[in-house]
Amino acid sequence: MSSIALKGDIVFTPNKDAFKTYKDHYLVVEDGKVVGIFKELKEEYKNYPVKEYTDKLIIPGFVDIHLHAPQYPNLGLGLDKELIPWLNTYTFPEEAKYNDLEYAEKVYRRLIYDLWRKGTTSSIVYSSIHKEGTKLLMDLFIDSNLRAYVGKVNMDRNTIPELSEDTEKSLEDTEEIIKEYNDKSSLVKPIITPRFVPSCTEKLMKGLGDLAIRYDIPVQSHLSENTDEVEWVKSLHPEFKDYASVYNAYNLFGQTKTIMAHCIYNTENELDLMEKNQVYAAHCPNSNYNLSSGIMPVRKFLDKGIPVGLGSDVSGGHSLSMPSVMVAAIQASKMKWLETNKELKPLTSSEAFFLATEGGGSFFGKVGSFILPQKMVK
Amino acid sequence: MSSIALKGDIVFTPNKDAFKTYKDHYLVVEDGKVVGIFKELKEEYKNYPVKEYTDKLIIPGFVDIHLHAPQYPNLGLGLDKELIPWLNTYTFPEEAKYNDLEYAEKVYRRLIYDLWRKGTTSSIVYSSIHKEGTKLLMDLFIDSNLRAYVGKVNMDRNTIPELSEDTEKSLEDTEEIIKEYNDKSSLVKPIITPRFVPSCTEKLMKGLGDLAIRYDIPVQSHLSENTDEVEWVKSLHPEFKDYASVYNAYNLFGQTKTIMAHCIYNTENELDLMEKNQVYAAHCPNSNYNLSSGIMPVRKFLDKGIPVGLGSDVSGGHSLSMPSVMVAAIQASKMKWLETNKELKPLTSSEAFFLATEGGGSFFGKVGSFILPQKMVK
Repeated sequence: MSSIALKGDIVFTPNKDAFKTYKDHYLVVEDGKVVGIFKELKEEYKNYPVKEYTDKLIIPGFVDIHLHAPQYPNLGLGLDKELIPWLNTYTFPEEAKYNDLEYAEKVYRRLIYDLWRKGTTSSIVYSSIHKEGTKLLMDLFIDSNLRAYVGKVNMDRNTIPELSEDTEKSLEDTEEIIKEYNDKSSLVKPIITPRFVPSCTEKLMKGLGDLAIRYDIPVQSHLSENTDEVEWVKSLHPEFKDYASVYNAYNLFGQTKTIMAHCIYNTENELDLMEKNQVYAAHCPNSNYNLSSGIMPVRKFLDKGIPVGLGSDVSGGHSLSMPSVMVAAIQASKMKWLETNKELKPLTSSEAFFLATEGGGSFFGKVGSFILPQKMVK
Repeated sequence: MSSIALKGDIVFTPNKDAFKTYKDHYLVVEDGKVVGIFKELKEEYKNYPVKEYTDKLIIPGFVDIHLHAPQYPNLGLGLDKELIPWLNTYTFPEEAKYNDLEYAEKVYRRLIYDLWRKGTTSSIVYSSIHKEGTKLLMDLFIDSNLRAYVGKVNMDRNTIPELSEDTEKSLEDTEEIIKEYNDKSSLVKPIITPRFVPSCTEKLMKGLGDLAIRYDIPVQSHLSENTDEVEWVKSLHPEFKDYASVYNAYNLFGQTKTIMAHCIYNTENELDLMEKNQVYAAHCPNSNYNLSSGIMPVRKFLDKGIPVGLGSDVSGGHSLSMPSVMVAAIQASKMKWLETNKELKPLTSSEAFFLATEGGGSFFGKVGSFILPQKMVK
């Protein structure tokens, strides 16, 4: 990887409560890593190529921790239903198309191009159930030099026939991808992706949890997005305390690094479990508006020390743009503030920026900020 | 004005409940007016210049019925307060700058350019209290060939000293603008603009209502945007039934064509009065989110037959983009649907499009749609 100095107006959030800004400074990158921010270029960096971005902002790449690649053709369409009928009417029929690799390649190339164009350099992505389509998506991400976790979706119940997997086959395909891709790239990695409890038998969830632990692979799924969904899970698993407890019983809730999308209707027990297991919440406010799901009480999560990032949730979300998601997150938090009699404080600008960069970026490691030892900043 | 044929994919909403689409058709414009939509160009139009927009949409220009021109430099800034402290902290100090015509010209040129760039061809605009600045804004709109109502703001109480007008002078300045501009342009017209009840003494409101009637000039103001504001109006005018009744007493509520922005906390009496007087509601969902004002029950207005359009409300709104306002309007209506136990139905896509075009456009006359006698459409 090359070394370079970028010159412009540098902005980032070292923590959620403040922006750090350096007007007309150099950001020096060595072997793909930020090594310092300087007013004048030091002698040792003088031979690095300089890219001038005068009067432009230099910010960390955006991090989108929840989106569905095969739903991209539905962007902005079919948002007249709530979650479950929306899945059955628009989403599952679209996802069924991805056994066609030619179709998949066309969509996935466009998606990756658009992520790059919108400044999203790291993302955590659902593919479809299809093994070959998932490998294709991972290869395209590797070619792009963008950072990503990509998950083959697992479903063996309550879906349309074309998407209903044989349980054993679903686990075998998942393991094959893990073995093939876990060390293939430093930037693109597999993530275990049970769609959500209603789509997965306990046998499948158990098998996926076992794989997660055996290979130390992270996990992503959905949690408490919609009131009908929450009721459905309760009726499917009356023996469990709540929705999160089902995942937790099968090692899919923080036993390895885990992200749960939405988290609008979490119980106190679910919040405690997320905090204890440091499960990430993917806050997807555009999607939560569009599917009439509701408003996540994001302040509760932050106050409790639960890690939070933002997700476009395409195509429940109508836009890949993380600034659009940041705006929606702030706006939603203001409505939640009113709704709670001004108890849960709205997100600030720096908090929204932090969530869209380091908040989600920390799931990858040191991603999403330009934090530096003080001595390096001149 | 010239005649022209535009070729492309034509979309508009003849009413709020449906899109009308014509793929790869000609839209023929004669002397600035749409005369028909045709699959093949008729003999009589064959000599018109044709502009090809293959695979592109041809839609009516967007109509923004509520924005504040002098607040444009604050776009996206200072959204951490509710209405009244927001006005005093960020907005009034910015508006006080517009006695400087050089500053005003810089801002207003940029605003008009951006309106054009975003496809907003008709807008209803607040200027500041400044007479010369308002005339400058009107002249710049005339030069731009965009359609606009522009109002000099009137304020003679409860504001910062730089913006507090002498009552007589405020009325004289307003009348001077009316006389000078009412017949100057067919596209750009004056509108009477008491900021809102708390900013205007009864003497000023009476004088403005008299001017409205005498010259048959439309009126715009704000209504029931924020709970503290509503309480304030109640305490200023305990003798009136409600906020709208104050305007109504002074002929500022539908006695001539009137727009009221926001209308979040309207009483049933206020809704009845709006319906009876056919007062337009300017729905500004981005602003209502950003200033933590609340969610307007837009479905109630539509069901009642109150005319409604959309407003960016820059800079309470953070974007001039009418598609952004359409998205926010749909999203807000979905949250209102949940809040009312699924009683007030969400806006559909065609309704949002209609509100952003013909809904507000009808305030100007036949603006915002391509409605045509059926025989003209081939």
